[in-house]
Amino acid sequence: MTSSAARKASGKPRRKPAAGAFFSVRDSVKVVQGRSGPKAGKRAKFLADTLVKHLHAFIKEARPSMDEWMQGIHFLTRTGQLSNDWRQEFILLSDVLGVSMLVESLNHEKLSGETESTVLGPFYIPDAPRYPNGANICLDGKGEPVLVRGRVVTAKGKPIPGALIEVWQANEDGFYDVQQKGIQPDMNLRGIFTADAQGRYAFRSAYPRHYPIPYDGSVGDVLKALDRNPNRPAHLHFKVTAPGYETLVTHIFTPDCPWLEDDAVFGVKQSLIADFTIVNDPARAAELDLPSPFREAVWDVVMTKSSRRQR
Amino acid sequence: MTSSAARKASGKPRRKPAAGAFFSVRDSVKVVQGRSGPKAGKRAKFLADTLVKHLHAFIKEARPSMDEWMQGIHFLTRTGQLSNDWRQEFILLSDVLGVSMLVESLNHEKLSGETESTVLGPFYIPDAPRYPNGANICLDGKGEPVLVRGRVVTAKGKPIPGALIEVWQANEDGFYDVQQKGIQPDMNLRGIFTADAQGRYAFRSAYPRHYPIPYDGSVGDVLKALDRNPNRPAHLHFKVTAPGYETLVTHIFTPDCPWLEDDAVFGVKQSLIADFTIVNDPARAAELDLPSPFREAVWDVVMTKSSRRQR
Repeated sequence: MTSSAARKASGKPRRKPAAGAFFSVRDSVKVVQGRSGPKAGKRAKFLADTLVKHLHAFIKEARPSMDEWMQGIHFLTRTGQLSNDWRQEFILLSDVLGVSMLVESLNHEKLSGETESTVLGPFYIPDAPRYPNGANICLDGKGEPVLVRGRVVTAKGKPIPGALIEVWQANEDGFYDVQQKGIQPDMNLRGIFTADAQGRYAFRSAYPRHYPIPYDGSVGDVLKALDRNPNRPAHLHFKVTAPGYETLVTHIFTPDCPWLEDDAVFGVKQSLIADFTIVNDPARAAELDLPSPFREAVWDVVMTKSSRRQR
Repeated sequence: MTSSAARKASGKPRRKPAAGAFFSVRDSVKVVQGRSGPKAGKRAKFLADTLVKHLHAFIKEARPSMDEWMQGIHFLTRTGQLSNDWRQEFILLSDVLGVSMLVESLNHEKLSGETESTVLGPFYIPDAPRYPNGANICLDGKGEPVLVRGRVVTAKGKPIPGALIEVWQANEDGFYDVQQKGIQPDMNLRGIFTADAQGRYAFRSAYPRHYPIPYDGSVGDVLKALDRNPNRPAHLHFKVTAPGYETLVTHIFTPDCPWLEDDAVFGVKQSLIADFTIVNDPARAAELDLPSPFREAVWDVVMTKSSRRQR
């Protein structure tokens, strides 16, 4: 029997798929969006449909070659595999593409008087030690001594007692403790403080230095390919929480850093540049158990009531 | 000395950053694109700038909450970490979002007569065994026996001797060998064949069945959230290479599969649906060392000269 006779013998008709049933470049967005079923979550579908629309627009404009597509797959895979409990390469990628700052800005539009927020960054860890106010979080003894103090208050200036102030920063050599396990003391330059009855907090630390973001991974490759600066201007991270108030994630920046206008992750806002004044007062230094002179930043945190924003 | 006196004493003027130096929602694309240096690779900069433009447009339209952003970070991280030598979750993600098919289609616009291409999928491995024509790649003995044969030719019908035909497919239970290490024989249903002097190739295998894409990972979560079908219609993968010709990555689909119009990865094209006729010819079956009846697909591969497309 010939193959064509066999086809007849099998009696199996070729299915005729509906016109437009298959993928096409022209209708790519519609075809993909159209596959969701009736039980799709409304928000999930909106997010996925919006992503597909913009992702396909990107592909149609950029027209990556098959090799470039595969490089993209490998890049994303490597970015995931570089991430662990101590390193989050996808946050870093989001940061250098301006995505973190964009999401952050859209979620925290500036309200008059309240402290502005900025990116979380990849080095936050939730279980830092709790300290009494005034404690020194600089466990490696490096760097220029600094006193940071201020109040946590409402927009009307009322204190918020019990607010938790989490702080973390890089050391004098430009690394966070989690980047130098076994080199820096554990939990170096991290701590959680509690605002007192007057809303006051205070801690001793080291004057922050600028540092490059981790540069040895996939995100470093992006910055190299684009001839971009990997440095972040010197800063100190804050995360402030209090019941009834929006969690505030922010930094304070030093005023004299040469990288203020070229932050690799776009985190600088004018209002977040603090004074770190040099204090030449040996008696006060002795009282604070700091060498003289030392630097002092007075930084009040103005919280936003949870009810002030609707989502 | 008061803090304000100390500030004067330090003599350090507050730097005045340039207007527009910092990130803003309105200028987010321009700010990020503007950071590339003069040594940026031209193609890298074009790809990155185009990505940033569409990615920021996505964020501005979707307005993810901080929690959703963090879920996105975790999702991408997990997708990378699920990938290994035997599983590529980012290819799967690209597949279900229609991105693979879009990139593939833009790179291989249909030329008259030449065989159309489709997605590679995540289960290709380059080092399958080489077999003589006619060999049986079905090592687990499961499924309906099938003979696949045809010629590798130019658009003018000239044979391309020596063309390499790599084939791979899922078994009767819907899994590729690499998904069932220790359950299926290694290299089950994979092989590399070589076109003979007349361009002919042939192999024995099992009639493909539809199967769900791997559903236990991050991509499965996406399909569940969107109430989408995870099934791929029954198919057999081909990758055909020959010096002077464009590498062809394609499938052939069976004509009677109920999932032809709802492929989870959008890979079906009308021209790739083959006949798999039932052959009732005991003598021919015996000659081919196949039971009777068996199925037969006659599938010619028409290659594109490398020079036919410019990039």
